[in-house]
Amino acid sequence: MAIRNAFYAQSGGVTAVINASACGVIETARQYSDRIGSVYAGRNGIVGALTEDLIDTTQESDQAIAGLRYTPGGAFGSCRYKLKGLEEGRAQYERLIEVFKAHDIGYFFYNGGGDSADTCLKVSQLSEKMGYPLCAIHIPKTVDNDLPITDNCPGFGSVAKYIAISTLEGSFDVASMAATSTKIFVIEVMGRHAGWIAAAGGLAADETRDIPLVILFPEVPFDQAKFLAAVEDKVKRYGYCSIVVSEGVKGPDGKFLADAGIKDVFGHTQLGGVAPLIASLVKNGLGFRCHWAVADYLQRSARHIASKTDVEQAYAVGKAAVELALEGKNAVMPTIVRTSNSPYRWEIGHADLADVANVEKKMPREFISEDGFGITDACRAYLLPLIEGEDYPPYRNGLPDYVVLKNAAVPKKLTSQFAV
Amino acid sequence: MAIRNAFYAQSGGVTAVINASACGVIETARQYSDRIGSVYAGRNGIVGALTEDLIDTTQESDQAIAGLRYTPGGAFGSCRYKLKGLEEGRAQYERLIEVFKAHDIGYFFYNGGGDSADTCLKVSQLSEKMGYPLCAIHIPKTVDNDLPITDNCPGFGSVAKYIAISTLEGSFDVASMAATSTKIFVIEVMGRHAGWIAAAGGLAADETRDIPLVILFPEVPFDQAKFLAAVEDKVKRYGYCSIVVSEGVKGPDGKFLADAGIKDVFGHTQLGGVAPLIASLVKNGLGFRCHWAVADYLQRSARHIASKTDVEQAYAVGKAAVELALEGKNAVMPTIVRTSNSPYRWEIGHADLADVANVEKKMPREFISEDGFGITDACRAYLLPLIEGEDYPPYRNGLPDYVVLKNAAVPKKLTSQFAV
Repeated sequence: MAIRNAFYAQSGGVTAVINASACGVIETARQYSDRIGSVYAGRNGIVGALTEDLIDTTQESDQAIAGLRYTPGGAFGSCRYKLKGLEEGRAQYERLIEVFKAHDIGYFFYNGGGDSADTCLKVSQLSEKMGYPLCAIHIPKTVDNDLPITDNCPGFGSVAKYIAISTLEGSFDVASMAATSTKIFVIEVMGRHAGWIAAAGGLAADETRDIPLVILFPEVPFDQAKFLAAVEDKVKRYGYCSIVVSEGVKGPDGKFLADAGIKDVFGHTQLGGVAPLIASLVKNGLGFRCHWAVADYLQRSARHIASKTDVEQAYAVGKAAVELALEGKNAVMPTIVRTSNSPYRWEIGHADLADVANVEKKMPREFISEDGFGITDACRAYLLPLIEGEDYPPYRNGLPDYVVLKNAAVPKKLTSQFAV
Repeated sequence: MAIRNAFYAQSGGVTAVINASACGVIETARQYSDRIGSVYAGRNGIVGALTEDLIDTTQESDQAIAGLRYTPGGAFGSCRYKLKGLEEGRAQYERLIEVFKAHDIGYFFYNGGGDSADTCLKVSQLSEKMGYPLCAIHIPKTVDNDLPITDNCPGFGSVAKYIAISTLEGSFDVASMAATSTKIFVIEVMGRHAGWIAAAGGLAADETRDIPLVILFPEVPFDQAKFLAAVEDKVKRYGYCSIVVSEGVKGPDGKFLADAGIKDVFGHTQLGGVAPLIASLVKNGLGFRCHWAVADYLQRSARHIASKTDVEQAYAVGKAAVELALEGKNAVMPTIVRTSNSPYRWEIGHADLADVANVEKKMPREFISEDGFGITDACRAYLLPLIEGEDYPPYRNGLPDYVVLKNAAVPKKLTSQFAV
C-alpha cells in the first residue's frame, strides 16, 4: 500500500483539550510511518487547506508534539468558516481536492463540532464522486456537548470541571461576605443553545456541601418573578445565593436576554453579558448586593484544571481517527461509548457521519429539576464521571509550560490562488 | 503564667489563603496549650465579637483545622464593618473589651487589610488605657497587596498566579481564533486603587512567550486615543491582542471608567464592569471582534491554583502572630521580608501597627513601562517569586475537597446586647 500524507485541521471554538486530540492524531500517525507520510495541518483550520497554507508537523520534535497534550487553544490556529452546501459551494470542495491531490493527502482529519462534521461528510462525498481516494474522518470536539451518538464531546468535561470548581469557589467567597455585604454571586457560562455547561455549575453542591444555587438554563424560558422568588427563598434560608446563568437564557419572547439591548455610556449596544443584567435584576428587585463574573474564554481554555477523563478521551478520539482511517473507514467519527456509570467505564466506538452532521443533542428535560432551577440526580450521574481526575500541566516560573510550535509552512505546489 | 483564651477574626474581602493563616494561628495555639486555652473565632469577623457570637474552634478536629490550609473563603465568615475612631466609636471598643473579659481573651488576632490594622491598633490602645491586658496582633491579608513595610501581602500571590494563568490561557484561545473571528480578549481584574493585580497579567508574556498585551492600570489615566493606537499596533503585528484592565482604571477626569453610567435595558445603572466598556470601545473604534471576561470573586477564591509561596507565607504569618503574642508583643503585625530575589528567600519579621495602619502602598512608577501599558523587568523580578509553586488541594469526585467547619457557638456569658 502506498504511503500517503494526512491532513489535520481544527475548526470552530477551541477547547482546553483539542490539542490533545491533535497529539493523538500525530503521535499515532508517527507510529504508522509505513503507511502515513507527513501530517500536514491546516493553518487556521480549513482556511489553510483552501489557501494551500499547510503546516509541516514533521518539523516538530516528539517532545513538542507530546506537549500538545497539555496545551490549550488551537496549536495550528482554528477558524470560524463554514463551507457552503455542495452545490452552492462546489468550487470550495473542488479546491480542497485540488490541494489534497497536490500534496498527496490520503487522510482527512477534521476536528470540530456539528458544522465541521457536515463539512467532513461533504468532502468525503465529493472525493468519491471525483474518483479521488480519501479517508475523511471527523474528530469530535465541542464544549457545548451537543454532538449526537457520542456519549459526550471532548472539551466539555474540562469546561464542566472549571465551571463546577468556579461555582464552588465563588460560593465559598460570597458565603463569607454575606452577613454584612454581598449576598449574591452570579457566574455567566457558555452554552448558546444547550444548558450542559450551566448544569455543571450544579455539581458545586452535593450531599456534603449544601450550597444554595439557582441555575438559569437556555431550555427554560426566563420568568423574572419566579426567578426572584427562588433567589429570595435561598437568601432567606442560607443568607446568600449563587446564580449560574447560561449566556443562552431566553425570555418568554424567545429572544436572548443578553441581546436585550444593554447600552454603554456612548449609546452603543454592549457586547454580550447576561450576568450584569441578572445582577441588576436582583439588585433592583430584591435589594441584595451582587457580585458577578463572566468566565468567557477562561472556561474553555483552562487547561490548568482540565478533567483527566476529558484529556484521555480527547487523545483517544484522535488516536482512533487514525486507526479508523488505516482500517479504510470513511465518513465516520470516533465516539465515546459509556459502558458503565459506576465505576465509570468507557470505550471508543464510531458513528457514520451521515447520522452526526447537523443533528444537535439537547439536554434531556429529566436532567433539569422540576422547578427549572437545578439539576437532577440523573444529570449528576451523567456529569460526574466527565469531570473526574486532574491532569496538571508542567510548570515553569509559576506558570504552565505550554508549548508553542514552530508551525513551519509546507512549500506551495499550486500556482493558483483561492480567495476565502 | 495563666492560661488565657485567644480571639481570631477575619476581616474584609476574603482570599484563597486567609484560611491558611487561620490554620497557622489555630495549629500553633494548639501547640502551646500550656499558655493558650481555647481559640474563639468571631462569627462574621469583628461583628461576632461585638455581638458575642463566638465560634468554639476547639470543637474542630485536627484534621478539619489542617483542611483550612487548602480551603478558600473565610471559614468563620468575614465582614465589611469598619469600626469608628476611638472617640466617636468608644462604645464599640468598650464592648469588645467587655466581651473579651467575659471570655478571658488574652490574645487578639485580627486578619485583614489596612482598615483592620487600624482597628487592631485601637483595640490595643484602649485595652492599655482600660488596664485590660491584651496582646493585639494584626495578621496581614489582602489581594490588593497595598500594606506597607511587608514585602507583599498574603492573598496577593494567589490572585497574581490566577490572573497570570488566565491571561495566558485566554491569549492562547484568542490567538487561535484571530484569523477569521475574535481578535481581542479583555480580562477585567480587581484592584480599585493599585495596579498590582493588573500587573500580574503581564507575567503571561516573557522571553519564551511573545504574547501581545495591553494593560490598563489605575495609576495611568485612561487615554482613549493612545489606548486604541496601542491595541491596533498589536493586532497589526500579531494578529490579535489581549487586554488586562483593572476595575480601578480612571478617565482623565479622575472618575472610574466603570462608573461611567452604563445602563441596562430597564434604565438602571449597571453594576460594575469595565471590561464590556473597553470591549465596546475597541469594537466601535477599531472594528475588531472582542471577547471579554470578568474574573471577580473567581480570582480571589481560586484555591485550586493557589501559589505555593503564598500558601506558605499565609500560614507563616498566622503562626508568627501566635509566637509574637507569646513573646508578649503587642500592636504589631508579622511581615514578610524578602532577603534574596534569585534564589528567592524570605523570612518573617514584624512591624509596629502604628507604622502600618492607614498607610497604602502604591505600585512604584518604575514597575510600569514607559508607554503605560506594560510592566518592567523590575516589576517582573518582584512578582515572579510570589506566584512560584503549586499547592493543589485534595480532590473528591472531581472537585476540591474543601472543608466546611462545624462552627459551634460558644455559650454567651453576657446578658447585654449590642446592635451593629
